[in-house]
Amino acid sequence: MKRAGKGKIRELGVVVGKLPTGAKNDLTDVPGVRVGHVTIQHELEDGECACTGVTAILPHGGSLFREKVTAASYVINGFGKTTGLVQVNELGVLESPIMLTNTFSVPAVTQGALQYMLATNEEIGDTTGTVNIVVGECNDGHLNSIRRCVVRPEDAVAAIENATEHGVEEGAVGAGTGMVAFGYKGGIGSSSRVVSASGHTYTLGALVLSNFGSKDDFLGDRLFACAPREPAAAEAVEKEEDGSIMIVLATDAPLSDRQLLRVAKRAGIGLGRTGSHFGHGSGDIAIAFSTAHKIPHRTESVTETRVQLREDHPVMNELFAAAAEATEEAIYNSLSQAVTTTGRKGRTVHAMPLPLR
Amino acid sequence: MKRAGKGKIRELGVVVGKLPTGAKNDLTDVPGVRVGHVTIQHELEDGECACTGVTAILPHGGSLFREKVTAASYVINGFGKTTGLVQVNELGVLESPIMLTNTFSVPAVTQGALQYMLATNEEIGDTTGTVNIVVGECNDGHLNSIRRCVVRPEDAVAAIENATEHGVEEGAVGAGTGMVAFGYKGGIGSSSRVVSASGHTYTLGALVLSNFGSKDDFLGDRLFACAPREPAAAEAVEKEEDGSIMIVLATDAPLSDRQLLRVAKRAGIGLGRTGSHFGHGSGDIAIAFSTAHKIPHRTESVTETRVQLREDHPVMNELFAAAAEATEEAIYNSLSQAVTTTGRKGRTVHAMPLPLR
Amino acid sequence: MKRAGKGKIRELGVVVGKLPTGAKNDLTDVPGVRVGHVTIQHELEDGECACTGVTAILPHGGSLFREKVTAASYVINGFGKTTGLVQVNELGVLESPIMLTNTFSVPAVTQGALQYMLATNEEIGDTTGTVNIVVGECNDGHLNSIRRCVVRPEDAVAAIENATEHGVEEGAVGAGTGMVAFGYKGGIGSSSRVVSASGHTYTLGALVLSNFGSKDDFLGDRLFACAPREPAAAEAVEKEEDGSIMIVLATDAPLSDRQLLRVAKRAGIGLGRTGSHFGHGSGDIAIAFSTAHKIPHRTESVTETRVQLREDHPVMNELFAAAAEATEEAIYNSLSQAVTTTGRKGRTVHAMPLPLR
Amino acid sequence: MKRAGKGKIRELGVVVGKLPTGAKNDLTDVPGVRVGHVTIQHELEDGECACTGVTAILPHGGSLFREKVTAASYVINGFGKTTGLVQVNELGVLESPIMLTNTFSVPAVTQGALQYMLATNEEIGDTTGTVNIVVGECNDGHLNSIRRCVVRPEDAVAAIENATEHGVEEGAVGAGTGMVAFGYKGGIGSSSRVVSASGHTYTLGALVLSNFGSKDDFLGDRLFACAPREPAAAEAVEKEEDGSIMIVLATDAPLSDRQLLRVAKRAGIGLGRTGSHFGHGSGDIAIAFSTAHKIPHRTESVTETRVQLREDHPVMNELFAAAAEATEEAIYNSLSQAVTTTGRKGRTVHAMPLPLR
Repeated sequence: MKRAGKGKIRELGVVVGKLPTGAKNDLTDVPGVRVGHVTIQHELEDGECACTGVTAILPHGGSLFREKVTAASYVINGFGKTTGLVQVNELGVLESPIMLTNTFSVPAVTQGALQYMLATNEEIGDTTGTVNIVVGECNDGHLNSIRRCVVRPEDAVAAIENATEHGVEEGAVGAGTGMVAFGYKGGIGSSSRVVSASGHTYTLGALVLSNFGSKDDFLGDRLFACAPREPAAAEAVEKEEDGSIMIVLATDAPLSDRQLLRVAKRAGIGLGRTGSHFGHGSGDIAIAFSTAHKIPHRTESVTETRVQLREDHPVMNELFAAAAEATEEAIYNSLSQAVTTTGRKGRTVHAMPLPLR
Repeated sequence: MKRAGKGKIRELGVVVGKLPTGAKNDLTDVPGVRVGHVTIQHELEDGECACTGVTAILPHGGSLFREKVTAASYVINGFGKTTGLVQVNELGVLESPIMLTNTFSVPAVTQGALQYMLATNEEIGDTTGTVNIVVGECNDGHLNSIRRCVVRPEDAVAAIENATEHGVEEGAVGAGTGMVAFGYKGGIGSSSRVVSASGHTYTLGALVLSNFGSKDDFLGDRLFACAPREPAAAEAVEKEEDGSIMIVLATDAPLSDRQLLRVAKRAGIGLGRTGSHFGHGSGDIAIAFSTAHKIPHRTESVTETRVQLREDHPVMNELFAAAAEATEEAIYNSLSQAVTTTGRKGRTVHAMPLPLR
Repeated sequence: MKRAGKGKIRELGVVVGKLPTGAKNDLTDVPGVRVGHVTIQHELEDGECACTGVTAILPHGGSLFREKVTAASYVINGFGKTTGLVQVNELGVLESPIMLTNTFSVPAVTQGALQYMLATNEEIGDTTGTVNIVVGECNDGHLNSIRRCVVRPEDAVAAIENATEHGVEEGAVGAGTGMVAFGYKGGIGSSSRVVSASGHTYTLGALVLSNFGSKDDFLGDRLFACAPREPAAAEAVEKEEDGSIMIVLATDAPLSDRQLLRVAKRAGIGLGRTGSHFGHGSGDIAIAFSTAHKIPHRTESVTETRVQLREDHPVMNELFAAAAEATEEAIYNSLSQAVTTTGRKGRTVHAMPLPLR
Repeated sequence: MKRAGKGKIRELGVVVGKLPTGAKNDLTDVPGVRVGHVTIQHELEDGECACTGVTAILPHGGSLFREKVTAASYVINGFGKTTGLVQVNELGVLESPIMLTNTFSVPAVTQGALQYMLATNEEIGDTTGTVNIVVGECNDGHLNSIRRCVVRPEDAVAAIENATEHGVEEGAVGAGTGMVAFGYKGGIGSSSRVVSASGHTYTLGALVLSNFGSKDDFLGDRLFACAPREPAAAEAVEKEEDGSIMIVLATDAPLSDRQLLRVAKRAGIGLGRTGSHFGHGSGDIAIAFSTAHKIPHRTESVTETRVQLREDHPVMNELFAAAAEATEEAIYNSLSQAVTTTGRKGRTVHAMPLPLR
């Protein structure tokens, strides 16, 4: 079931940046990348409410353990509980899906993703070493009864199995079900950019889980300024705590782990342009991967060959700009695609009033 | 039940370094620090074997969430799945027990520690923010059927509840039950040092979970060289994978998070002196905390006052040396205290032959 | 001689952000902070041209070696030759002026600042240790014959001696003499913000040396959109290389080195909002210090006491916003205050066309 | 003139580690690598003394700017003034000689190396960007009148021009002329290791500038224990300040910048094994480079191809061990090769008493 919001911000006439988007304007424009959701939304006893979920991002459709991809992570602000980054940083590879969920469901989702990896790679922990699971999170406790830990390991497995390369469902879905951004309903948003150089064409996509910012912080107005806006039917909410954002960047450009780290840092530009000041209590984390190489878990070889971008080629700067633009636009999409949602303690968070077409 | 090994290496006549030890020569010499274990060791069906456990380190006996301690972490080599470091690094505080277990039990132990924190601090995730759980791990898959994930969340709760300030049980206990170091039985080891300056006396303790190194790497021989050794009754084992080590340092010296990071880095000196070269496949991670300040979760104040060491005072260098010495000796203790253990696939790992008293 | 530009951007009707500015809206609003320039601009033989200079920032008017200040640095993008950061990062203190100049004059300026420190602190390198000099740089080679290395050590000394707490001269002065930003004349710019909490008032100032961006990158238009603009009398220039920016943040808020690092990272938000994507070839570096503590070089004490901000107090988030806002506005001021300048090879870089009052 | 010490420690019967050395047992065993010294030692007026110098390490004999090499740096302890690391860390390449000198001569040596690079690459700062100079340092102020800054830029040029691939002169030469380690005369030392795998043979060399440690810290005794020692004709000296060490690692193994960083971190193992606890006041820095690729400054290509080691191949662990062993042995060589030296204020620092052959 499509939980339809108002469409992507670009459909509302707002253009972010200068670079062209990919065909779907989302993460799955990067060939092979898959995204899946499990949305959990129902009442619990005594007024509590499950309003949460899981999102899985798969760099490709094969075994991620047997064919790893180059990756890097960057902690913009580290008030967060993301797991798996130590090994990504040391080795520069990703060997599992990237999972997103709420803060207290990180263990259950790690467990589920681990079980999935064990089930589909019988050598792990038997004839070869262990596997590193990456799980990011935001705190959806405003709408979701987060202490109840309603997400189960099998929800993580289902999110992985739901993953499709045919577009990203956005808004109040998956891990985004209960998230709040700039006082309005946030959640999952995605966008992409295409850059070209000397006959090479590369795609870079961003997917965000937005859960940060107060109404007064919002700088999207700098873009929307001239457009007539919808009447503000509803108040923005004020949360007690700073929120967070998880940002996943994917590209088919052949980037080394160090180059991916440089790209991941540019996600902070897009985040800052929307109005964030990387609040004290926020877990703002970017993870970037490249699908250009599939790195085998084991070979007999002493060496391997990697193609990587010449950093002094202008296309590197275009990829930097693409990361900033796609992140900014993905955040706006997480707002424009989100629907008004009611959760814990009867709280309602409204969809943001947006420019009228 | 005390799983008695041969005693601490110092009881066998081997002295590491120049600084005096604390009374118990372990982590609990730092006033208030508590350590607890749950040991899991039994046969499973079809020849598989549970040979693992959980260890909990508590900086003090109160609510760690409401009274946090200053902390830092340092990744010596990052082929590991330790969780919770992102927030420790950002904020410089620890607000949960430090939990140790096997690699695939990180989710269960995180879940258990989370449940313990939620049960004992009802405001978390309700009227205030979330809580950051720190769980370290090594891969005990040589002796433990790690794919079976036998550790349950309640084992983590039990390890926390077992914690005592009356000494650290060492060897093949808790998270150390199935660990292997230098081809012999490793596991939990601990040691401490006392430094004095201008009437101030500070204690620094180390606790390790040792699971690294091949027999040929061992440099303890540099120390043991002159002593007659036990006959090598048994072969050292060769593991397929590099192992890992978790190192926890505690002190009552008033150190800032930056100063604790400097201390944590010195753990690598002690590790290197035993013969480690920080193997490619090892997750070698040091976490250091100071009990000198209990930092309230919330106050009305705009500022707070922290006492910290003058880094140019010679006692800082003594604390650096203490971290190196205590880590080295803790590793030897993890060997001398470990008992021969049989686990998965009928594999036996012997206690290391040691100098005769 | 005041090299008058068009005034601060705020005088032209453009307001950046929500927080109030300090009295002078520059770095010297932070009590005690001093800024001095030496501007070097004259023709050399054979069409070459000296179009460069030195800028010195002093945290206070006393001996910076004997009374150090808390500090941190953050490398936004590291294609740069800034020196002195290793020790700032290790110890969290600054013990010299922060010097700014062109890329190839870093050695001469380091030498000059070193000579100044040796002359005014006879114990350095004699009865006590050495001193750490911090020098930042951008490449002004478009207008300045940078290979000629015209800056001498005594120019650095003069910049230090010129330092005054009575306001920051902006635009094409000091280290900014030959810099180019967004295709127009850049250089030195400054701005400040005041935040208040529970009776405490803190000031945070930013000073930038801007030398980055192409005309097409500029996002200041998002702010200037509604204002009528001056006719674009002159073309923007295209440089062959990415440029750079140095950002210095000062505050009287009592921040620890870790907290200052968090503030320094927010400078990147302001930079990103102006249109930068942290180009591959840019050396984008932020250095932040707090004047709240004067830390003696040597004492007899084992410990010292530091007051620091409670990070969960809302004023921390205001300081983060202040760092972003002041950096963004300082960049605009570096443009609005800069005058059209002709340099090497007869190249002219024009002042940016700006909104008409 | 060869300033002959007692020979390499291995010639004195002390073997460090298990791996075989290269033919010369020094850094120039890595094909193409060159090392040159300028030694400055003479009396100044009024009892002051010049007892210092410059050492240059060149990864190959061509233009390092036009053909860069892969590189990484690691700060073991950052109380130091090394310059050039920001760009090495960002880009993962080295484009200049690595220069070593005393603390206060960093500006002069940077200036000299810059002039050398400008003279031999006329495009720098004219038709292309700038160049990054790397200069490391230790404080030789015990023997050298460091405040006098006797090193001139032309000394740096001479050290570069003196560089030869025919072996490393060790001891009290070049930058090592005035250095003190473990209370005895230190300075330049070097060692190398050879590792083999599947028909591939790689060499890794270490060169150190040793200037750290007090007599009581020395752990070389663990190795020398059984050997009869020379009579201690002379007292060890006690310095007021912690010293430092610079460690340069070179290899012809095809390592990426991330892999080189991992290797550089293992230098700290060797350092720790000699007895260092990375003192508070020490600038302990490792820089590693690989000669396997010559990376052109500019190409027309969008991508480039890099061969790199499979990290899971056992040879990676051998390279880690090689870095630890070669660093430890290089430090011992810096002691055994150093000659008793008299400098500032009539101070004499003796050669260390060593095992008799």
